[in-house]
Amino acid sequence: MAISAKPPSGTRDFLPAAIARRRYVLERIERAYQHHGFVPLETPAMERLDVLTAKYGEEGDGLIFTVLKRREKLDLDKVDPAEPLVPQLSDLALRYDLTVPLARVVAAHQQELPKFFKRYQVQPVWRADRPQKGRFREFYQCDVDFVGTRSVVAEVTVVSAVVDALTALGFDAFTIRINDRRILTGLLNGAGIPASLHADALIAVDKLDKIGEDGVLGELTSRGIDAAGAATLLRSFSSAATDDETFAQLDGAVASDDAAAAEGISTLRRLVELLRASGVTPCWRIDPSLARGLSYYTGPIFEIAVEGLNGSMGGGGRYDELVGMFRGQDVPAVGFSLGLERLLVVMEDRGMFPAVDFHADVLIAPLSENEWAPAQALARVLHSEDTVTEVYPETAKLGKMMQYAEQGGCGVVAILGSREAEAGEVGLKHLASGQQVTLPWSDVARQLRAWAGAE
Amino acid sequence: MAISAKPPSGTRDFLPAAIARRRYVLERIERAYQHHGFVPLETPAMERLDVLTAKYGEEGDGLIFTVLKRREKLDLDKVDPAEPLVPQLSDLALRYDLTVPLARVVAAHQQELPKFFKRYQVQPVWRADRPQKGRFREFYQCDVDFVGTRSVVAEVTVVSAVVDALTALGFDAFTIRINDRRILTGLLNGAGIPASLHADALIAVDKLDKIGEDGVLGELTSRGIDAAGAATLLRSFSSAATDDETFAQLDGAVASDDAAAAEGISTLRRLVELLRASGVTPCWRIDPSLARGLSYYTGPIFEIAVEGLNGSMGGGGRYDELVGMFRGQDVPAVGFSLGLERLLVVMEDRGMFPAVDFHADVLIAPLSENEWAPAQALARVLHSEDTVTEVYPETAKLGKMMQYAEQGGCGVVAILGSREAEAGEVGLKHLASGQQVTLPWSDVARQLRAWAGAE
Repeated sequence: MAISAKPPSGTRDFLPAAIARRRYVLERIERAYQHHGFVPLETPAMERLDVLTAKYGEEGDGLIFTVLKRREKLDLDKVDPAEPLVPQLSDLALRYDLTVPLARVVAAHQQELPKFFKRYQVQPVWRADRPQKGRFREFYQCDVDFVGTRSVVAEVTVVSAVVDALTALGFDAFTIRINDRRILTGLLNGAGIPASLHADALIAVDKLDKIGEDGVLGELTSRGIDAAGAATLLRSFSSAATDDETFAQLDGAVASDDAAAAEGISTLRRLVELLRASGVTPCWRIDPSLARGLSYYTGPIFEIAVEGLNGSMGGGGRYDELVGMFRGQDVPAVGFSLGLERLLVVMEDRGMFPAVDFHADVLIAPLSENEWAPAQALARVLHSEDTVTEVYPETAKLGKMMQYAEQGGCGVVAILGSREAEAGEVGLKHLASGQQVTLPWSDVARQLRAWAGAE
Repeated sequence: MAISAKPPSGTRDFLPAAIARRRYVLERIERAYQHHGFVPLETPAMERLDVLTAKYGEEGDGLIFTVLKRREKLDLDKVDPAEPLVPQLSDLALRYDLTVPLARVVAAHQQELPKFFKRYQVQPVWRADRPQKGRFREFYQCDVDFVGTRSVVAEVTVVSAVVDALTALGFDAFTIRINDRRILTGLLNGAGIPASLHADALIAVDKLDKIGEDGVLGELTSRGIDAAGAATLLRSFSSAATDDETFAQLDGAVASDDAAAAEGISTLRRLVELLRASGVTPCWRIDPSLARGLSYYTGPIFEIAVEGLNGSMGGGGRYDELVGMFRGQDVPAVGFSLGLERLLVVMEDRGMFPAVDFHADVLIAPLSENEWAPAQALARVLHSEDTVTEVYPETAKLGKMMQYAEQGGCGVVAILGSREAEAGEVGLKHLASGQQVTLPWSDVARQLRAWAGAE
């Protein structure tokens, strides 16, 4: 047949070994989130197209996978070629992120949700990006959000939960960069940059890590910001030795009557105080240059950087205006999105995974078809003792069965010939050591545990 | 705003309480499957459209959610209105079942997979069916398949794993009906029904449970099968008291030179012998009338019926020709698909769930903003002792905080005033009993366990 067996471009099949590693990571992240009182949410893969385009009008154009209308709803005669095609041909679309579904759920299930809805969500999202190394069209997002309060305790809770998750995964050298959108605006104003150029300025500032101060200076001026203002702005980003010094510096850089910036600074002071109390090792850094691309943040913003790695492993912040979009009112919220795929790549590169894989504890090798029935009986005994037990399904030479066990990562073969079956015994062979013992069935699980413990 | 917050028709948001129940079920199913050596597989939500239509040409027409082509690939000028529209407008489609992805994976990853690929897969599938009670457009399938052998040990392994899963969920009155496609064909031939009418006959026989013998007789004759043949066929379905008697009856009903039917009968004899040895409680029944709708079965077929319930909870069988479709060669396989959504409904109806939900073990209630920092420090202590701990994020009256705890299913409130914070103590209130104690922080986790143990 001519049909290709590859998965669609930009998507992946996850074989058991890959799933074992993904689950290892997700279990630790989930446990950390749950410890802080976050609970899981799952939403459908498809959303109505109008729900997605309400947020992603332009950004999503061409990047959203949309679903063709069905049966009589699909009528090319009614398509107006002068109008955008996609909304005329499709009514549903694949989830583009986990924030819009959260906003929708908060509106749809208002009555059932607690006053503070602390949810995490780990599900795939789909983007029709050009596939490239490490970038996929189907990938998992791992979001944690605290909905329903303007209190900075929400920021502390979310950041502590993420720090606990990363620590549980074995990361010890990472930094959460912290800033506040209101401070950034204050610094732009303080540098005399007109509001009409703020969006441009943020795009340039966002590249500081990648292109350096000179690069940003160049980009700022090329975007119409005068050189003096650009230089002032960059100076206000220079970091101080301590948080207190940084805050003092920021106090001086924003206008004295800038109430929003002042609130940003006092919020961060409080955030830092609470983070310190929460015992989060001092892995944060106040970074006034942190911009975060998305326009919807309204207060504190954060981003994780892992030592020795370009780019971020995730980030988030406060966005008080988005979650309420379907209710037509503000619903305050703080969120953090961990880049699960990136995390997996880094952990793989750095050898941070213990040996995790799925394999049988023992393979039962019946020496002839006469032992097929006793093999099932032995398997039953072992299953009841919580032992992962496979039965070799065909008649084969012992060597072939041992090879199958070895290739599958199973370390012990239970050899069942007619003599053993009659005596209610079995020959256990430990492949790594070559050790072999003959035991009654009831002793097998204990011997397996002894060998596993010695490894 | 005018945008609806409901999920798309036929799909559902899963709030935490629903997820808790789904996970309770899935964990038990997965553990049973893993015990038998099955390992997880996950595949992309989207498949190429040609991959899906290779199997679902007609059945899938209109039921498959297809994905609109993107950007320059979407060109209405090139659409030929005389040709089917869907393949001209879409190139990808949402997974319709988990069997086609399995077949594709077996072809794509041939080199990496073991000789016997025993996989389970629990993922959503999408069907553009008309939504109705208990039928969804996004629903989970829960498949277990044994790929790579013609040995009946594959059937035994799959059936035992499913029986173990159901038993772990608390089902004790269910029956796995077992038949073999080759026997069924033999019975049709034995009743003198021409091969050209076999497909029609199977459709009618498949309704035996729903419309009874008379109904099936009527439908058989209305489909062009003569009354005598129809009556003979139905007689051959009548069940006997024991498996052995049923087999003897079947031996008599099929032609003596029907080698395929004879092989079907001897396969079932062996299957029953091995199931008995495997210690599966005798919850199977040989049922020669079991047809199973799908055309691709080639050997034994099974279906689970739960006592007191119409319809099946799942089923499967041997299908030696499908998994190899992308390799252009036969790859023998036996599979079983559990109807997860049905299982959940039945367990809910029958009260088979223990109390499973996500809730905090304790809510820390700081009495003023001065206690926000100590509250974080206390939370840290409790998190390190594996205690699910929430901090109330706002200043509020104690009664309001206690109400929040109660509504969220959290049974203990840790009251933190200035006096307690200074003394390194906290007031613990057990909401159900009204009991209240003041303890040092290091004793809190122990007290929580004591209360939880007493409930």
